[in-house]
Amino acid sequence: MRIRNKHYHTIWLNDNNDTVQVIDQRKLPFQFETVDLKTVEDTFFAIKEMVVRGAPLIGVTAAYGMYLALLKFDGDDLETYLNEKADYLKSSRPTAVNLAFAVDEMTGFILKEKSNPELIHQALKKAHSLKTEEIEFSERIGEFGLELIQKIYNEKGGTVNILTHCNAGWLACIDWGTATAPIYKAHIKGIPVHVWVDETRPRNQGARLTAFELGEEGVPHTVIPDNTGGHLMQHGMVDLVIVGSDRTTITGDVANKIGTYLKALAAHDNNIPFYVALPSTSIDWEIEDGLKQIPIETRDAGEVTEIEGWTGTEVKSVRLIPEKSGVANYGFDVTPARLITGLITEQGICKADKQNILKLFGGKNSK
Amino acid sequence: MRIRNKHYHTIWLNDNNDTVQVIDQRKLPFQFETVDLKTVEDTFFAIKEMVVRGAPLIGVTAAYGMYLALLKFDGDDLETYLNEKADYLKSSRPTAVNLAFAVDEMTGFILKEKSNPELIHQALKKAHSLKTEEIEFSERIGEFGLELIQKIYNEKGGTVNILTHCNAGWLACIDWGTATAPIYKAHIKGIPVHVWVDETRPRNQGARLTAFELGEEGVPHTVIPDNTGGHLMQHGMVDLVIVGSDRTTITGDVANKIGTYLKALAAHDNNIPFYVALPSTSIDWEIEDGLKQIPIETRDAGEVTEIEGWTGTEVKSVRLIPEKSGVANYGFDVTPARLITGLITEQGICKADKQNILKLFGGKNSK
Repeated sequence: MRIRNKHYHTIWLNDNNDTVQVIDQRKLPFQFETVDLKTVEDTFFAIKEMVVRGAPLIGVTAAYGMYLALLKFDGDDLETYLNEKADYLKSSRPTAVNLAFAVDEMTGFILKEKSNPELIHQALKKAHSLKTEEIEFSERIGEFGLELIQKIYNEKGGTVNILTHCNAGWLACIDWGTATAPIYKAHIKGIPVHVWVDETRPRNQGARLTAFELGEEGVPHTVIPDNTGGHLMQHGMVDLVIVGSDRTTITGDVANKIGTYLKALAAHDNNIPFYVALPSTSIDWEIEDGLKQIPIETRDAGEVTEIEGWTGTEVKSVRLIPEKSGVANYGFDVTPARLITGLITEQGICKADKQNILKLFGGKNSK
Repeated sequence: MRIRNKHYHTIWLNDNNDTVQVIDQRKLPFQFETVDLKTVEDTFFAIKEMVVRGAPLIGVTAAYGMYLALLKFDGDDLETYLNEKADYLKSSRPTAVNLAFAVDEMTGFILKEKSNPELIHQALKKAHSLKTEEIEFSERIGEFGLELIQKIYNEKGGTVNILTHCNAGWLACIDWGTATAPIYKAHIKGIPVHVWVDETRPRNQGARLTAFELGEEGVPHTVIPDNTGGHLMQHGMVDLVIVGSDRTTITGDVANKIGTYLKALAAHDNNIPFYVALPSTSIDWEIEDGLKQIPIETRDAGEVTEIEGWTGTEVKSVRLIPEKSGVANYGFDVTPARLITGLITEQGICKADKQNILKLFGGKNSK
């Protein structure tokens, strides 16, 4: 999508194919800067320090990280070298499933092709293919979700109001995003859409990233405190909710950014369709009960006690909480399938239950 | 309650009875300062600029403001003078019902007693009585609510976890608070309580004021982003929710700080008792449908786009939202009576429906 009217992906290679370039997402929306990653260590840093974030983007960044590691190899034992780099890279965000998957894919591919005289070229192609696949997944989610928006538009006429939580946008992916993909497709098609953007405390990914994305792409939107969505739904100001998913059970429970569950309750209470957009890679085929089986990450207290903002000249952190007060910072919550109208995947839309998920994915019962 | 181990009310007179003193609530929790109000104009400023806030405290401040106006009177026509001051004072926060009520009470009283040689002394006593009444209301709400907490403690043993939203604390009142009164009573009685404090974006009254209050009083508490409560309730970490009310319909619908409705939905979904603590002065005996009949105030965009925090040396505002993005700032939402377990009032606890409200208040059908 666009930033300052120029088309970007979240990650790309320079012309010499020896430097990976990414947008520094820590500084958005206040400053737009790109960062050069020349080594696997640079890649490790970019993932760990959240220069890049979002499961699909983390995975692709790690894939290019393994390519960069290969470029620097000048020893005898490629396998030992690559396995060391792989373990190192995986430790940058230990809970990110896509990260481990992408690193293992690249390592396996490189070792399989290690006698190929065009190994470096082939490894680059492999990393590119992982990137391209993510874009395709997003686009297909966008096309399927577009049908939902089109249908609402056909029925009600006028602007379609969509609420989203956190950033399941193109900045978390390579392009298009997941929850935002249908919105961009609708906007491009000329359907009038307006997005209610939950600011998404404590890290404010909605206010900082989703709002930035939508603004740069010219999609009408309004940032709201996380407390606001219920009131809007009570008053007919939301036609559709679309959120992303960090992990989805085979029964359709969805772990997503903390606060998603509250919006699902409000949508359910007001008969508003609540959809989750996700690539099938986020489905965990092994677990049936999201509330009991998905562990919820507890994050650093500083994310709650301090907040970053723009002073007019610089990004600054200020403290929000009295010194005597403790805080809690749960990263995610689980929305039970019963509150979810449907899942928008790259294979199509299905109800959030085991039977329909298995049907859509051809009876797949393990990855 | 206590600040730095000294007992305070939110408002008091100096020894000469010619200066009203209040805590500057704009600076809490980062700085503790008191402000002297010597004239009705000072009082107007304190209410308008939110040096004082919370319906009960605004009312009492205005009552003392009319007393200060009387002190300065040196003309011939007391009635015209007082009516002018009354209109002026009411315009400081035009929508605050308690403000108009307190000003009218004082004006009527002073004009009735205008021939009394002890008029100034009597007017002061009248203002004191309005203050004392607010404290009594809070204490009685505290005693009734204490029974609920005691019952939960008797049944489960261990710490009773209570979630609250915004600041319905003693800083909004004179002492004790409304939603916090049962908590303070339980804490003083030795029942182990722990409070989950919603930070309450956008103005962060939970993080700034409720957390400060509880910390100064030594009540264990944890500040959480507003997104968190649903997750806690799903996992059995909340035993009871108590919130305040800005306006309550005769049918038991409650208008309170934006986001209250989302917590009520989550409590309902998880079978957790959800109580609203309110003085009967917040009941609007004329309206039956909160969602349709209570107008919801839209507040300044700056409250969402900017946030105040402590840099270590000063209170500073930083911007949170991209320049291209609009924001919406609804002050309140309405929680339908069906989601409310009961109302805790100064007359006792009742179910949130017309029949039980009328029964508790002796068939009262207008104020």
